[in-house]
Amino acid sequence: MRIIGIDPGSLRTGYGIIESDAAGELRHVAHGCLNVSGQPFLERIGAIYRELKQIIGTYHPEEAAIEQVFMARNADSALKLGQARGAALVALLEAGLPVEEYTALQIKKAAVGGGHAAKEQVQSMVRWLLKLSENPQADAADALACAICHAHHGRTRQRWQPAVSR
Amino acid sequence: MRIIGIDPGSLRTGYGIIESDAAGELRHVAHGCLNVSGQPFLERIGAIYRELKQIIGTYHPEEAAIEQVFMARNADSALKLGQARGAALVALLEAGLPVEEYTALQIKKAAVGGGHAAKEQVQSMVRWLLKLSENPQADAADALACAICHAHHGRTRQRWQPAVSR
Repeated sequence: MRIIGIDPGSLRTGYGIIESDAAGELRHVAHGCLNVSGQPFLERIGAIYRELKQIIGTYHPEEAAIEQVFMARNADSALKLGQARGAALVALLEAGLPVEEYTALQIKKAAVGGGHAAKEQVQSMVRWLLKLSENPQADAADALACAICHAHHGRTRQRWQPAVSR
Repeated sequence: MRIIGIDPGSLRTGYGIIESDAAGELRHVAHGCLNVSGQPFLERIGAIYRELKQIIGTYHPEEAAIEQVFMARNADSALKLGQARGAALVALLEAGLPVEEYTALQIKKAAVGGGHAAKEQVQSMVRWLLKLSENPQADAADALACAICHAHHGRTRQRWQPAVSR
C-alpha cells in the first residue's frame, strides 16, 4: 500500500510518501516541502493544489493521510491554514484517494511513541524508521510521520477485520 | 464582462453570475447556493470544488470576485471556513479566472451604499439592481453583491486607465 501523508500550511506544506507491505514493513518513497512563501496569498493556494496534484501524478499513492487541525494561534492564521488545507484536500480528493485524518497526538504517538515529542524527535525517529541518510526537513518529517501513522492504523484495521467477519 | 461572485462557507457557498457592459449596465445571469450541510466535512470540501467547477463550466465567467474574510467567531469556525474558501479558490484559479478579493465593507457599499447593511437590505437591493422577481437567498445575494462590487471596481479601473496612459 502506497500512502501519501500531508502536513498542510499556508507557507510550507510537507508531503511524504511511503509504502507499507503486508508484514508491516515500511519503505520510504519520497518526501519534500512545497515552499510557497514569497508569493501573493491567492497564488499560494493555487500553487499548493497544482504542485500536490503533480506529486500525486508522479508517485501514484493509493491512500492519503492528513493532519487534523483543531486550533491555531488566532482566527487569522486559522483562516490562512484552512485555505491551504482546503487546497491540499481538493488535490487528494480529486485524485480519488481515500483520505484519513489524524490528530497531532496520534501522529506523534505513531512516530515517536509519545504525544509530546519535539520537532527534532519526530525528525530523528522518522529518519530511523525509514532508514534515511539524514533528518528530513521538519514539515516533510511531519508528513512522513502522518503517513506512518496511517500505515499503523491500516494494520490495526486489518488485524481486526477477520475477527469481525467471523 | 461576465463575473462570478462567491460567498464562501463550509455549510453554504453562495454564487452569483452577472454581466456588466461597457456602459455599466448590469444583467443577471444566474445565482444559487451550494448547500453541502449534512455531509461529512471532507466530502463537503470536495463537493464545493466539484459543484463550483461545474457552474464555471456551465456559465463561463471571465472574472471572479470573492469575499475577503478577516475574522471568524473562533479558530474552529475559521479553520472550517478557510477550507471551504480554499476549495472554492482552487475551482476559480484552476479555471484560469483572475480573482479579486473584496472586504464585506466594500461589497455592502457597492450593493447598498453603506457598510452596515443588514442581510435583508442586501437581498432587496440586489433584487432591485438586477431586476429579479424575488429576493435571492441570503448567501446567493451576498455572492451577487460581490460580483456587483467587482463590476463597479472594473468601471473605476477603466475610467482611470486613459488618464494614466496619457
